[in-house]
Amino acid sequence: MEHYDVIIIGGGPSGLITGITGKTQNPNKSFLIIQKEEKGLVPCGIPYIFHDLGDVTKNEMGPKGFINFGGEVLVDTVTDVDMKKKQLYTEEGKELSYEKLVFATGSIPTIPTFIKGYDLQGVEYIIKSYDYIKNLKDKTDKAENIIIIGGGFIGVELAEQLAKFKDKNVSLVEMQESCLYRAFSKDVAKTVDDVIRETDINLYNGTKVQEIIGIDGKVSAVKLSNGIEIKADLIIFAIGYKPNTELARKVGLDINHNGAIRCDNYLRTPEKDIYAIGDCAQKVGFVTGRTDDIMLASTATAEARILGYNLFAINLLRNFVGTLSVFSTEIAGTVFASAGAIEQSAKYANVDYIVGKFEDVDRHPATLPGAKKLMTKLIVSPRNGEIIGGELYGGKSVGELINVIGLAIQKEVTVYELISYQIGTHPLLTTAPTKYTLIKAAEIAVKKIKEKYQR
Amino acid sequence: MEHYDVIIIGGGPSGLITGITGKTQNPNKSFLIIQKEEKGLVPCGIPYIFHDLGDVTKNEMGPKGFINFGGEVLVDTVTDVDMKKKQLYTEEGKELSYEKLVFATGSIPTIPTFIKGYDLQGVEYIIKSYDYIKNLKDKTDKAENIIIIGGGFIGVELAEQLAKFKDKNVSLVEMQESCLYRAFSKDVAKTVDDVIRETDINLYNGTKVQEIIGIDGKVSAVKLSNGIEIKADLIIFAIGYKPNTELARKVGLDINHNGAIRCDNYLRTPEKDIYAIGDCAQKVGFVTGRTDDIMLASTATAEARILGYNLFAINLLRNFVGTLSVFSTEIAGTVFASAGAIEQSAKYANVDYIVGKFEDVDRHPATLPGAKKLMTKLIVSPRNGEIIGGELYGGKSVGELINVIGLAIQKEVTVYELISYQIGTHPLLTTAPTKYTLIKAAEIAVKKIKEKYQR
Repeated sequence: MEHYDVIIIGGGPSGLITGITGKTQNPNKSFLIIQKEEKGLVPCGIPYIFHDLGDVTKNEMGPKGFINFGGEVLVDTVTDVDMKKKQLYTEEGKELSYEKLVFATGSIPTIPTFIKGYDLQGVEYIIKSYDYIKNLKDKTDKAENIIIIGGGFIGVELAEQLAKFKDKNVSLVEMQESCLYRAFSKDVAKTVDDVIRETDINLYNGTKVQEIIGIDGKVSAVKLSNGIEIKADLIIFAIGYKPNTELARKVGLDINHNGAIRCDNYLRTPEKDIYAIGDCAQKVGFVTGRTDDIMLASTATAEARILGYNLFAINLLRNFVGTLSVFSTEIAGTVFASAGAIEQSAKYANVDYIVGKFEDVDRHPATLPGAKKLMTKLIVSPRNGEIIGGELYGGKSVGELINVIGLAIQKEVTVYELISYQIGTHPLLTTAPTKYTLIKAAEIAVKKIKEKYQR
Repeated sequence: MEHYDVIIIGGGPSGLITGITGKTQNPNKSFLIIQKEEKGLVPCGIPYIFHDLGDVTKNEMGPKGFINFGGEVLVDTVTDVDMKKKQLYTEEGKELSYEKLVFATGSIPTIPTFIKGYDLQGVEYIIKSYDYIKNLKDKTDKAENIIIIGGGFIGVELAEQLAKFKDKNVSLVEMQESCLYRAFSKDVAKTVDDVIRETDINLYNGTKVQEIIGIDGKVSAVKLSNGIEIKADLIIFAIGYKPNTELARKVGLDINHNGAIRCDNYLRTPEKDIYAIGDCAQKVGFVTGRTDDIMLASTATAEARILGYNLFAINLLRNFVGTLSVFSTEIAGTVFASAGAIEQSAKYANVDYIVGKFEDVDRHPATLPGAKKLMTKLIVSPRNGEIIGGELYGGKSVGELINVIGLAIQKEVTVYELISYQIGTHPLLTTAPTKYTLIKAAEIAVKKIKEKYQR
């Protein structure tokens, strides 16, 4: 029986980075990644296949880097694991033994079995599979009336891309009051909707799918709960993902109430030498301390680096107490981003907070060509002024500005410190030094804290 | 005699922010700013007046915000101060008394009296004066052959703007091997030169001005030390600035060897109730601990906030031990930025360091339209892995990415921590989550430290 020191089930971002980091840290150990398909995809790049990239081949992500460092890859599916014997079995009949086993099995889309007509031909999903997405791209090319169900990041980005084809009717249906309602506070989510409405997307928010109507077993329309019926050749559901833990359940790993594999701060499951990372693994909220259902490639790779360094001994202390969700997206030229706690998540988790909000433009003077409105919100713990979250929208600079806020949250920076934060500013790149956006938002937060608690 | 609780001499960024912050913190105190001209300029916006903005009015910066909070402004020039009587005297014959006096007198350009012909008509400078720059803009509009002397930030930005006029010959002369050689390490500064050479600027580096040649008292050409002679109607010197401390010297304030007003961490001069901030005030290097000659509006405003909060009692602890220079600029679409120590400044100050360098593109996958090369260098203390500096070049995102590095330096983040830093990534906005640029540079630094010290 072939033996590997480390076997990783899954070749997505978390599996791959665990492999690369682990192998470079332990060059004498043997590493195997088992993945279902030969080719992988950059997960967050998937929406852009449908227009900007134009082709699935341009979004390939493969294990080349891992193989270059001496890792091995097997294209196969693990069917069972004997945790006592430390052996696993595959669809192709392989039997392999391991010292350490990593579950990096990712997530799968939620299938709306509760909606009549969900099984008609022409109902599709965003499945993180190279071959599936290749086919779906062909289907969108042929379709004229496309309905995206679900206004989360994937739904919004997909709709934005498909609506760039002037000969297609693209509709987006979101059950909640606004799109991206989980990542942004109410007023920012409303701005998301405003930006979507400026595109060619037909947005139906605050309503849900009542029924999918078909003719001869094929999708023909969608009936919404508000009575509207929309014509459709193709329906793509993007209503969420759940941890892919079928195998983990089968072999008896502990699964939490979110359906994720239970693991500790170092990604260890309660079973010795078995680890779980990425979308299939338990997350604990950075600010809230609750188990969470964040699924982000950036989070997955942060975990993967921790695990890669620590597989055979704790070499790298885990410096983060929990998962910090940092979201960003660009919709029709406007960038939206958030990090950590937002108003409703703070409320839900019963975290006391105040908001420091500041609006300006992202260049200075504001008369410069290309200047775009820049909105900044800092969510701040009023007791000690610690920054626990933030939201932004504006131009391209928002993509990295959110990472300043992310670092501030992780390093427990207070608004008092931020006020004297030394920054780089430039007319073509940032707000003015006299009113740098994070500093102004911090100043407003300081003022609010004073008014609220220190009179 | 009129009395003000606080008088600020100078209405530039540092004076203005001291005024606004101080007044909002102490609404019952009276504040006066004395400034030489009615209208001010956004200092870093000055180069863009010459093309992108097109007009000096679009770069105005005034005390409106300060006045709205109840501050007063006097357009006049302070000629003397009696520090014992706590009184000052102006050109217009005013006598005013104060409780606190702030020197925010800024800086003035270096005049090359050592170059023959420096006093010819047609030799100009970048003086931070509304009227002067208004006139200079008219002169550049009429000139055909313009030579900028000095390849620092102002010289490079000005040359880039003027070279956008296709009917002008614009030359840039830099004495050192490369432009921006003080803000960037050798290889990055070389890339700066490469980018400049792709524009219509004629770059003469590694050579200096030997003589300015004139006809009838007017500039006609410049003779370089390498023998080349360049035709000129207009010469603009941008060879550096020095603290504007004529008044401070006259009244007997302590001036350091860089020509700046000596002051402590809270911007207090050795004279009771007299403060100095911004370009005219002493700076101490964040990493090096040496007195420094950094002059940046962003630094000035950080100091101004500290002073504004602390004028009447220390309310806001100064969290930064010294001045952290964070530079950024955009040259012909490529953004360059640096923060803290760079290789040569670390060497000069005898700071031990290693470099973690990583190159990628600023979108993912790299096949996305508009993706630009992104270079990241982290300068790291090898003993504990602390980040002490960084350099970047790439697209627009560099403008805020440098502020992530800036915050990391200020919060003493180590490369070990950075490896598990949780970040936000997006295809259209950042490098991929599997190889986020700061994390990869940190990983390379960790590897170098291990090889160098821990075998």
